[in-house]
Amino acid sequence: MATKKRQPPQYIIGVDLGGTNIVVGAMSADGKHHFGARSIPTSAELGAEGVADRIVGLIEGVILDTIAQTNANRRDFIGVGIGAPGPLDRDKGLVVVAPNLGWRNFPLRDRIGERLNLPATLDNDANCATVGEWWQGAAKGASNVIGMTIGTGIGGGLILDGKLFHGASDVAGEIGHTTIDLNGRHCKCGNYGCLEAYASGPAIATRAREVLVREETASLLPSLVGGRLESITAETVYRAAQQGDAVASEIVRDTARYLGTGIANLLNILNVDVVVVAGGVTQAGDALFVPMQAEVRRRAFRPAVDATRIVPGILPGTAGVVGAVATFKMQHLGTL
Amino acid sequence: MATKKRQPPQYIIGVDLGGTNIVVGAMSADGKHHFGARSIPTSAELGAEGVADRIVGLIEGVILDTIAQTNANRRDFIGVGIGAPGPLDRDKGLVVVAPNLGWRNFPLRDRIGERLNLPATLDNDANCATVGEWWQGAAKGASNVIGMTIGTGIGGGLILDGKLFHGASDVAGEIGHTTIDLNGRHCKCGNYGCLEAYASGPAIATRAREVLVREETASLLPSLVGGRLESITAETVYRAAQQGDAVASEIVRDTARYLGTGIANLLNILNVDVVVVAGGVTQAGDALFVPMQAEVRRRAFRPAVDATRIVPGILPGTAGVVGAVATFKMQHLGTL
Repeated sequence: MATKKRQPPQYIIGVDLGGTNIVVGAMSADGKHHFGARSIPTSAELGAEGVADRIVGLIEGVILDTIAQTNANRRDFIGVGIGAPGPLDRDKGLVVVAPNLGWRNFPLRDRIGERLNLPATLDNDANCATVGEWWQGAAKGASNVIGMTIGTGIGGGLILDGKLFHGASDVAGEIGHTTIDLNGRHCKCGNYGCLEAYASGPAIATRAREVLVREETASLLPSLVGGRLESITAETVYRAAQQGDAVASEIVRDTARYLGTGIANLLNILNVDVVVVAGGVTQAGDALFVPMQAEVRRRAFRPAVDATRIVPGILPGTAGVVGAVATFKMQHLGTL
Repeated sequence: MATKKRQPPQYIIGVDLGGTNIVVGAMSADGKHHFGARSIPTSAELGAEGVADRIVGLIEGVILDTIAQTNANRRDFIGVGIGAPGPLDRDKGLVVVAPNLGWRNFPLRDRIGERLNLPATLDNDANCATVGEWWQGAAKGASNVIGMTIGTGIGGGLILDGKLFHGASDVAGEIGHTTIDLNGRHCKCGNYGCLEAYASGPAIATRAREVLVREETASLLPSLVGGRLESITAETVYRAAQQGDAVASEIVRDTARYLGTGIANLLNILNVDVVVVAGGVTQAGDALFVPMQAEVRRRAFRPAVDATRIVPGILPGTAGVVGAVATFKMQHLGTL
């Protein structure tokens, strides 16, 4: 009787490239096991080639860690999925423009792939975060998903009819730059009234500072930053709100109203099953989520509201890596 | 030698049910030939069963006309596609709520199908109009399409990755009820600042009346309606603008700005190839389309703007019937 040789497990590496940090991890190709997640500063000042060196070095370290943990061989690593800030050209594997990195038309996919002699794929970081939550997180099993990542900016990804949706030129999902107030606040994209100009982390901090300067209201906020208002961040605001500070609580409620408006627009357009809200903003907890959901109910159509769950992400810090592995599977293997 | 019997052509009937009119037509199943389009008033006051009678009668007339023109047999008619105002339950074939008709949970699909002894399908009227322009009109050949129908309301339909997109509970595409100004005008949906509250036909007329009452500006508009401001419609505004009237021209430019904002939001979210703008608003011509496209360029991301064409519909009056036939093919035959 012939003995059937057991197929050794295969591994895929996921890269989440951000303006501040690079996060890399490995996963078994079936998605069941995670190995050796590591993070280092991006050091964008080194330029594109320098950052690519750092990514390659980090991947090498993760591969070694994984081998040490699993007795895998190097040939069991079948590829690298990369999530990077957009806009991208997925066909060519280019980062077309990345303002936070100072890159233009950098061939990130092939640079990484060639250095490691592994197939590589590239996709938008917000798409990867959404796919991560869909594959293994808060949106598991859903057919239609909006993923929002709220941090320095507001990024988005769309799963529609069970597939990651890219649009005609890979820029679908830019939900941070949808207008909620056409005569409103100036956004760094040049437009007026974008959701991101109200509800990103820096926008939340800015609105808090504006109230403190304008109204001279009693507030905990200055004391939390040693009187240096320029040091207020969104996290400072959430912390003060948790301590019952009236100014901070109003800022959080306003943020809920802005985000609720943006989400209601998305529900009326896309009628999804799940909206995953991830990023720093989830630290605000129910103080944000409860009024946000109320605003959505006020603004979106009943059948769209009834069909959806609005939930925080459950893979903070790792959704991007998990999703990068998943996009490698979808792009390179044609299946998830 | 056996003679190969020629397969007789098959025909599909399309129904476009609106609050004001019912339009019915027949098409050859390959979409190449149109027959016997007819329109009658809906007469919603007759109630759901009465309107269903009128639809059935109109279909019978169209079948007879088609037979007279083609020598077809009655058995060559293979089904009826129905487009109706939503929200709908497509699975059950119900019109769930139709405020303009006064209907609730009316089983329109089966009522029509049973009376004619033909398979029938039901889809949203704005979806049908979009599918019509996609199958045979201004968006032919595109993979990602937004169809907007701007009349009494603003309806929308989405073709995404080459398929009509319905969402989780058949309400996707409600683009008229996306907020463009969160503290803005009251909308009849109960919300504030919806696109429809600014740019539907009645909203355009309301804004014109407001300017005339408030500003006592010299304008052609009152003279075009015999001094009865309540008789001003969107068409009156377009006509006055074409004659160079300053008030009307400003209303049209503002409309362009509102619609441009709404479309820019959709492009940043969905990055489609084509946006088809249909309905009465197309009568305003370049006076509307040129500033609308400028507003879109100002607000949407460059790669999204560069990837898209924004065009008027080219099937006025018939897109709904053509699309109803197409949705029958997609739902019942599984192909278009």
